[in-house]
Amino acid sequence: MTKKGTPIPELGEFGLIERLTEHLPVHSPKTLKGVGDDAAVLRVKDNICSLVTTDMLLEGIHFDLMYAPLRHVGYKAVIASLSDICAMNALPEHFTMSTAISSKFYAEAMDELYEGVRHAIDYYHVDLVGGDTTSSVKGLVLSVTAMGTQLKDKIVYRSGAHPGDLICVTGDLGAAYLGLLLLEREKEVFLENPDIQPDLGKHQYLIQRQLKPEARTDMIKHWAQVGFQPTSLIDVSDGLASDLLHICKQSRVGAVIEEDSVPIKEEAKLLAFDFKINPITCALSGGEDYELLFTVAPSDFDKVKFMPDISVIGEVLPADSGVYLKTTGKKEVPITAQGWNHFNRDIKPEE
Amino acid sequence: MTKKGTPIPELGEFGLIERLTEHLPVHSPKTLKGVGDDAAVLRVKDNICSLVTTDMLLEGIHFDLMYAPLRHVGYKAVIASLSDICAMNALPEHFTMSTAISSKFYAEAMDELYEGVRHAIDYYHVDLVGGDTTSSVKGLVLSVTAMGTQLKDKIVYRSGAHPGDLICVTGDLGAAYLGLLLLEREKEVFLENPDIQPDLGKHQYLIQRQLKPEARTDMIKHWAQVGFQPTSLIDVSDGLASDLLHICKQSRVGAVIEEDSVPIKEEAKLLAFDFKINPITCALSGGEDYELLFTVAPSDFDKVKFMPDISVIGEVLPADSGVYLKTTGKKEVPITAQGWNHFNRDIKPEE
Repeated sequence: MTKKGTPIPELGEFGLIERLTEHLPVHSPKTLKGVGDDAAVLRVKDNICSLVTTDMLLEGIHFDLMYAPLRHVGYKAVIASLSDICAMNALPEHFTMSTAISSKFYAEAMDELYEGVRHAIDYYHVDLVGGDTTSSVKGLVLSVTAMGTQLKDKIVYRSGAHPGDLICVTGDLGAAYLGLLLLEREKEVFLENPDIQPDLGKHQYLIQRQLKPEARTDMIKHWAQVGFQPTSLIDVSDGLASDLLHICKQSRVGAVIEEDSVPIKEEAKLLAFDFKINPITCALSGGEDYELLFTVAPSDFDKVKFMPDISVIGEVLPADSGVYLKTTGKKEVPITAQGWNHFNRDIKPEE
Repeated sequence: MTKKGTPIPELGEFGLIERLTEHLPVHSPKTLKGVGDDAAVLRVKDNICSLVTTDMLLEGIHFDLMYAPLRHVGYKAVIASLSDICAMNALPEHFTMSTAISSKFYAEAMDELYEGVRHAIDYYHVDLVGGDTTSSVKGLVLSVTAMGTQLKDKIVYRSGAHPGDLICVTGDLGAAYLGLLLLEREKEVFLENPDIQPDLGKHQYLIQRQLKPEARTDMIKHWAQVGFQPTSLIDVSDGLASDLLHICKQSRVGAVIEEDSVPIKEEAKLLAFDFKINPITCALSGGEDYELLFTVAPSDFDKVKFMPDISVIGEVLPADSGVYLKTTGKKEVPITAQGWNHFNRDIKPEE
């Protein structure tokens, strides 16, 4: 092992991935898309493609069992991967899940985790087709790989946006992050005084968005029914800013987002003010909303105009216009990636 | 989290998997095989199927960076999954790899890990098509998912063995386990006296079998060329005993293995005697050889008779004959699963 070298937080997740996967060879003509989108695209036969995506989730990094019930951890782990298949304009069909557990867990804890997994299986009509079960030195580790199939010309990448396209998003943004802030605050209160019972009832929506998010398979099905196809597509897992920048970088375009148009629920706004945070910051940098961010060709404007649960939030611009937010006060603020960098979290040094 | 309950070592890995995946629904008619073989079989179109397998490897459980160089850890993590695709009579084509790393690792350590991964990519002509990179609270965690495609009627399961079939194995067994014992012994010596440099030169083969195993894609290609197809197939990852029992259980048959016929290299035997272990025990319970264990229909005996690097080690029997070893001394000893149960390892209690 290298004893001295480049600290990984200096590179960040995307910098590290770029460094490790640079100049990767592609041996198979079946590999239509490898690393770099929400899922890989593998041609199986003729124009039928397999889509594959994988995620790893660790206790103490991605979830905290102080406030996240195991059944929700299991459910969310599955949903995060299913959402990545949706982000290619496809429906998830299968997944595998590997679980590593330390000696603090009893079999009953695993039953609870799998209760959440089974709930996702039933709700999304997907099949769990494999996995690995092993022990860990510390905490719970989950790895989920989801798969789907789609026709080659129905697959939507991050790279297809053109200047003049509308930028749209499903559902609402920022709530999952506010749910997390709320749970973290209640945890602190509880640790200081275990007798105080948290009253989270009035924030049920925000808590649910954090602990039990959903994948927008409904949207993918609806689009297929009405014959609509976005020009580019990504799911909002790292925050609107980071995910919009992925689309802009890979499509080589700029973009403007109208602050007023970004869908943020009233109760999310109120809690953001409580935390003295600008609500738009929660939408831009919060992440974990698992909504779909997509761009629409001018010829399809009429198709999306009256679709339920979709907001038009901006427009694709030429690359030299940059990527910026037009605020309520008509200021233009550059959008930079401030998504969650888990390598920069305040983690105790090991050993 | 459940505070009291059933300790997982009481169930073991397979017991836990059975408990968690019992009565799993199968929603999709495309799911030809879910949990329970070396890889899942998913029908994509007509008779073309995708094969998917996943493995999770943790520092301190599956590998020890005291003696396993990171490039070998990366290589072996890929090979273990490729081998599972071979074990379905298919060739691996794609894989994803997720990596979680604690703060003790610099970017250069990741470079070294990926050097091994790239070596596997080049040697096996497979494509790395995705992954996740995140931080861990403790140590290195790897999760590899490998994929391949095969025609439905070319796929070989664990369940196809019939009484009268020959039992065969590729290569030799037990060496990987003896390599591990050797490395563990040298580690102890080194910890007691860091000035003593280990002399592992004369055991190069055993060390290599432990640190840098190979997947038998060569065998799968050869079989396809000569038109041979086993009746059942599995890779030897948990040890001959455990893996043979998987075939017997799923094929509902018994089996006899001839001790004399089990291929064990001379240097493996010598070292086993050094450790005062019966060499056959290393083959039966060692694991990690990544050779292919398979059964052959009587009509195909001639095809395998002169194939290089294959040993006939026994015969499939009716279920009521049981599964046993005929020793060199002509004794009949029942074969029971004594594969490595990582839930029973001597791990320090957490926190």
